[in-house]
Amino acid sequence: MEIFIEPIGRLINQFSKLPGVGKKTAQRYAYKVIGMTEAEAKEFAESIINCKRKVKYCKTCGNFTEDDECEICKRRQSNTICVVKEPKDVIAMEKLHEYKGVYHVLHGVISPMDGIGPNDIRIKELLARIDGTVQEVIMATNPDVEGEATAMYIAKLLKPLGVNVTRLAHGIPIGGELEYTDEVTLSRALSERKSI
Amino acid sequence: MEIFIEPIGRLINQFSKLPGVGKKTAQRYAYKVIGMTEAEAKEFAESIINCKRKVKYCKTCGNFTEDDECEICKRRQSNTICVVKEPKDVIAMEKLHEYKGVYHVLHGVISPMDGIGPNDIRIKELLARIDGTVQEVIMATNPDVEGEATAMYIAKLLKPLGVNVTRLAHGIPIGGELEYTDEVTLSRALSERKSI
Repeated sequence: MEIFIEPIGRLINQFSKLPGVGKKTAQRYAYKVIGMTEAEAKEFAESIINCKRKVKYCKTCGNFTEDDECEICKRRQSNTICVVKEPKDVIAMEKLHEYKGVYHVLHGVISPMDGIGPNDIRIKELLARIDGTVQEVIMATNPDVEGEATAMYIAKLLKPLGVNVTRLAHGIPIGGELEYTDEVTLSRALSERKSI
Repeated sequence: MEIFIEPIGRLINQFSKLPGVGKKTAQRYAYKVIGMTEAEAKEFAESIINCKRKVKYCKTCGNFTEDDECEICKRRQSNTICVVKEPKDVIAMEKLHEYKGVYHVLHGVISPMDGIGPNDIRIKELLARIDGTVQEVIMATNPDVEGEATAMYIAKLLKPLGVNVTRLAHGIPIGGELEYTDEVTLSRALSERKSI
């Protein structure tokens, strides 16, 4: 890296740590920073520190928040809890502007291959939230092996508590084509077919 | 953007300013920052400010430098000057480890469409460097309309000064295929064919 002078090389290294960013892209980002005004660079740097310092996790649901409790938990009174893997999944759901319930972020999924067991994710915190008022828990973990297994595991724990446990539907994506749909998805779409 | 809490939204905005980064990518970068330790985030932020503050332009050639003069100008005594558009082009040339001369960075090319004339780029600084010792000036501006025009313009100014002005060769890229070579490049490769 001695082709780059030290401050540039160092910044390229930092940008390379971002997901999906290689040396070439990191280089472009560094040039952009050099082309910024000092005020712009300062604002950029400050927003990184600011974001890292201020963003915490909601004590109730585990979502991103600046306070102890997130805005969703504060504002919504609901008898429906949507269980997701990560805080970014909450954002994906919220973008719909359709779901009006609250969330529970597991911060991971059960994955024996990676040594992650039921006690390593926020399952007991979810069970603690099940009082008489909760009527439905929607399992919205990803439709992969770990996500499915985690959903099944949690459903087994919840059912004896008298909660209605549901799962997001699987099937062909809207706008997708049968020809290009993978076999597992197509098979799921077939077995879960509905009368119209 | 009210889906994101303020510190996250602000950081996403900042990342979106990087070249080629859209909302979705900026979001991924922001999540990465949230997942960093505080020390890592601080180092990231500091390297941005550090890079912006420390990187200046060499008073002689216009390349990136931390001092008044860049390492290349300091170390190399040469009678060959390679003229490039931007400091990043110096890095591209240096990666070859073949060129042993010095550089001159124009910081732009002549582009009447964008209102950039000969006085807006570092041409007079280049002419000032032409003393009796300079024997060759290699025009290494990009092979586009502006780059070609700039190279021709500078060549016209330099030739009366008794300097040998050369231009990087154009032709089919090594490893390329005739079938997929664009017509302009192929036509140049034909007209500039060499006996073997």
